[in-house]
Amino acid sequence: MKLTILFGGASFEHEISIVSAITLKEKLSSFDLSFIFCDQDHSFYLIPAQKMKAITFSKAEHKKMPKLSLVNGAFLEKKMFSTIEHKNTVLNLIHGADGEDGTVAALLDFFSIRYIGPRVNASVFSYDKRYTKWLCEAKGMKSVAYEMLSLHEHKNITLEYPVIVKPASLGSSIGVSIVKDESELDYALDVAYEYDKSILIEPFIKGVKEYNLAGYMANGKMVYSIVEEPQKEEFLDFEKKYMDFSRSEQVLKADISAELESKLRASFDKVYKNMFEGALIRCDFFVVKGEVLLNEINPIPGSMANYLFEDFAGGLEALASSLPHNKRASVNYDYIHSISSAKGK
Amino acid sequence: MKLTILFGGASFEHEISIVSAITLKEKLSSFDLSFIFCDQDHSFYLIPAQKMKAITFSKAEHKKMPKLSLVNGAFLEKKMFSTIEHKNTVLNLIHGADGEDGTVAALLDFFSIRYIGPRVNASVFSYDKRYTKWLCEAKGMKSVAYEMLSLHEHKNITLEYPVIVKPASLGSSIGVSIVKDESELDYALDVAYEYDKSILIEPFIKGVKEYNLAGYMANGKMVYSIVEEPQKEEFLDFEKKYMDFSRSEQVLKADISAELESKLRASFDKVYKNMFEGALIRCDFFVVKGEVLLNEINPIPGSMANYLFEDFAGGLEALASSLPHNKRASVNYDYIHSISSAKGK
Repeated sequence: MKLTILFGGASFEHEISIVSAITLKEKLSSFDLSFIFCDQDHSFYLIPAQKMKAITFSKAEHKKMPKLSLVNGAFLEKKMFSTIEHKNTVLNLIHGADGEDGTVAALLDFFSIRYIGPRVNASVFSYDKRYTKWLCEAKGMKSVAYEMLSLHEHKNITLEYPVIVKPASLGSSIGVSIVKDESELDYALDVAYEYDKSILIEPFIKGVKEYNLAGYMANGKMVYSIVEEPQKEEFLDFEKKYMDFSRSEQVLKADISAELESKLRASFDKVYKNMFEGALIRCDFFVVKGEVLLNEINPIPGSMANYLFEDFAGGLEALASSLPHNKRASVNYDYIHSISSAKGK
Repeated sequence: MKLTILFGGASFEHEISIVSAITLKEKLSSFDLSFIFCDQDHSFYLIPAQKMKAITFSKAEHKKMPKLSLVNGAFLEKKMFSTIEHKNTVLNLIHGADGEDGTVAALLDFFSIRYIGPRVNASVFSYDKRYTKWLCEAKGMKSVAYEMLSLHEHKNITLEYPVIVKPASLGSSIGVSIVKDESELDYALDVAYEYDKSILIEPFIKGVKEYNLAGYMANGKMVYSIVEEPQKEEFLDFEKKYMDFSRSEQVLKADISAELESKLRASFDKVYKNMFEGALIRCDFFVVKGEVLLNEINPIPGSMANYLFEDFAGGLEALASSLPHNKRASVNYDYIHSISSAKGK
């Protein structure tokens, strides 16, 4: 299968996206892959497979590679006397801003480029954790209690310590702190406000059971990964997550009951259906007293959570063959014609 | 003030957008205006002011005009031996799909073009009426009761007739029907499903009081229009709305108490703040037994609801001078560098 991996982006998770792309290059070696890099200035470059190394980007060598622009149906490469249209299905692998906030989705929709990844609506409801809470409420799903703080309207928090402080709209634990008591709060807020003007405060539930489940819909059917119980310390900081994004070895299935697995799948369905079609996502759940709570939606998980699937390449191919159709309104000028003729013009 | 009016779009409201743009050309005659048309194939054209007539587009004469492409910071016009960058602040006047669904917002954000109009998140919560309901619930605002139907999971409705049937994601009354009893339901659903695969059913409240209020935030302060009580029949059909979009005469203030006006403004604030900054929007409210219900958010109202403002041009200028800043993450390669050096590479 031909597939273009789109990665990079003007995002705090820019480096993570590079690591993800390099990992998928290995993992999808049976595919006919091409690579498009979006740099921090929002320019696109076509990266030859042999140049898919972290150092290419950290040394800005990508700037010597062919620059691409978006046109209807393709990324366009201009040669001296000709142009090449790159028209493959795109895998949106830009983590964080640009990729997960709906921007890249809108861009690819507008230019009629087929892609694997969350659509605009789905991006908005997963990128900003506040809207994920709204989604939970609307769909009758439990999630962790929370309070919002915002830079301009400061107020006191009422949750009991310890709490976890998160920028509303970042992944990969960037700007996240665990706050044990009030004396640590201001510093944690300062850190989080570096990244977002809205902050989410949640109770820190010590020793909570955490389970990750990935999946997608292909040919009208849900396909689920194994359930993983992530081995972690208090929480993954950025550096650990970074390493996490290069995972490619399949992991062991969590030792859970069939009943819990089916509860997790049912919760996954509630999140996914009528929202995330076209994307392979990973949901991170907490289980508290037998009850499933949604913690986070990763609409573009690190290295596409390849390590959770038995047949990752086959699954991605099935997903690529059943992407949502973007029905575009057809325009006519009936009213203008009828008004013009009424005016005798 | 220099301002570029962006209009058209691949939308069922394409013609309405043309009418809106022509109306604003007259209404903003004190501005230094330029006009960019987005056609149904998503190509952009620069339209000379004297060609801003409906017939230019219905006869496809725009195709003879300069074609533009998006580059970082501008719409680019290629001349024989040079290029011109069109860098003015843009007024997003594309009604319906493209303009109000977050696509154009994302495009302008991505290419760092300043614009008046709803941002991506705000677009998602106003374009799809289902998500407007979620917004109401999250913000503790009342709205009309509703049920959702979708093309793939048909079910019976439980609301009492008469009901109003609406495609979830269209404005301008397109595809909307009032259904007096069950015998009329199937036809109304067929009409609505022509436009959207999700349908909203609401009770039709006969003789409900309806009030429209527009506003925006400029320099940190909310600015409100007068409150209008729209004179209408059962509801405005497309043709009447179409005419409505060319309104430019200031209307009379609704005869309401100061108390109701302040209630409407308080509801408007709840919708607007932390969501619609950068946009001039119109909210349509119902008042039932003294209680304010949000009916609809118009994030790009027809002809920008100019007829509700005493100083429309001055207001737009103030809004343009206080648009949200799009803070873009700066990228460094700290982790890649540190990992490379740890590996001795």
